[in-house]
Amino acid sequence: MARDYGEEWGKTMRMVNMTCISCKDEYTTSSAGTCRECYEEASETEEELKKEIEELKSRIAFLKMWASEAMLDDYTDVSLQLSDGSKIKAHRAVLISKSPVFKAMLENEMEENRTRTIKITDFSYEVLRSFVHYLYTAETFPDEQMAYDLLVLAEKYQVKHLRTVCEKFITSRVNNDNAIMSFAFAHQHNAKHLREAALSLIIENMNTLTTREEYHELVDKDPRLVVEIYESYLSKQVNTAAKEATSIC
Amino acid sequence: MARDYGEEWGKTMRMVNMTCISCKDEYTTSSAGTCRECYEEASETEEELKKEIEELKSRIAFLKMWASEAMLDDYTDVSLQLSDGSKIKAHRAVLISKSPVFKAMLENEMEENRTRTIKITDFSYEVLRSFVHYLYTAETFPDEQMAYDLLVLAEKYQVKHLRTVCEKFITSRVNNDNAIMSFAFAHQHNAKHLREAALSLIIENMNTLTTREEYHELVDKDPRLVVEIYESYLSKQVNTAAKEATSIC
Repeated sequence: MARDYGEEWGKTMRMVNMTCISCKDEYTTSSAGTCRECYEEASETEEELKKEIEELKSRIAFLKMWASEAMLDDYTDVSLQLSDGSKIKAHRAVLISKSPVFKAMLENEMEENRTRTIKITDFSYEVLRSFVHYLYTAETFPDEQMAYDLLVLAEKYQVKHLRTVCEKFITSRVNNDNAIMSFAFAHQHNAKHLREAALSLIIENMNTLTTREEYHELVDKDPRLVVEIYESYLSKQVNTAAKEATSIC
Repeated sequence: MARDYGEEWGKTMRMVNMTCISCKDEYTTSSAGTCRECYEEASETEEELKKEIEELKSRIAFLKMWASEAMLDDYTDVSLQLSDGSKIKAHRAVLISKSPVFKAMLENEMEENRTRTIKITDFSYEVLRSFVHYLYTAETFPDEQMAYDLLVLAEKYQVKHLRTVCEKFITSRVNNDNAIMSFAFAHQHNAKHLREAALSLIIENMNTLTTREEYHELVDKDPRLVVEIYESYLSKQVNTAAKEATSIC
């Protein structure tokens, strides 16, 4: 009887598994990952990246070491003054280097330069303290509300790095409940990434849009923005229809 | 004739290779790495680590932004003065927070605090400039000689972070040509890791030890250190002999 070697081979193929060096489970050809050499190389890369992260963190720790002391220091040379008269001390050199607005205030013949006092009236002590703290430490902040406030301050004083960090932070936290509010905020402060993320989420959930309180508030406050939402929704529907038509043809 | 299925199976096993998802080469059971799931997970981890590195680098860039401006700033409040009378300007708050020695000088009733001038006579302008620059930026330095000088300065002013960074940098560059000099330097400045690395390299190359000029210089200058080298060499030989004896038994 002639043996069917093809069938034999096929059976064997299915039975030969390899053991994953990482999770220790067996795997078959269809779910093969890497050879051992590439695995070892990748592990080394991961180790090196982790080492680099540790080094960078230690540099940051060193750089921000003086922040807490510096802001209490008698030898600060500028004050940021709030509307209730309370002050936050800082170093002119730090403010100047981080913000072109502070630079203009503190290098030219302006009242701020003569009095060494910058009046900031629209923010709370806590927010302003966090803002100055960020200029010294680049340390991230605890909650969304602070990120919104700091984005506005960063925009006002043109601290680009902080503005970007705040926008990323808020964008990563956009959800159904805050999408409309985030969209309006992003529009007001020209935050493109946040605007896109919020709009995309709103459009994905159009069926519940008009049931939301924030929606009606936005209709009252800024109907043009509501029109933008509907225009984007319509445009997406038209695109989807066009794609479907093409795939049918 | 009875077929030998075992032999057939063995042949097939050797022929079934899988393709590495990373290098695209085929591999066999004996050089199997990971399954696809683990490979994908590892790739994601790598991406995340790289992202974290980018973020940390951007924080560092933001933190050290003021360094170049700050050190030229008219509003610095301390000077480091070299023996030729030249000065490097700095901020009291930065020096105090990075060095307990500067802190003691600038916070107590000492001459340095009254005159706001710290005299540093044993170093060149270039080295002192790099030292102050490091306090503001945590930026690494270009060459070994600078690392040696900065380690000595960091030791004198107790800037631990910089001391560690310098020691790592020098240790990573120990070779046959500088091992004896590095060993002597490490001994003098109590740099344990550097000392171990240098000693280990010297012992590996004992056959050329006495041919080296630095060896004879060390015999003249600090014979106790040379004794330490021989003691370590002897101890290593005794250990190796003991291990060999055990393996024979």
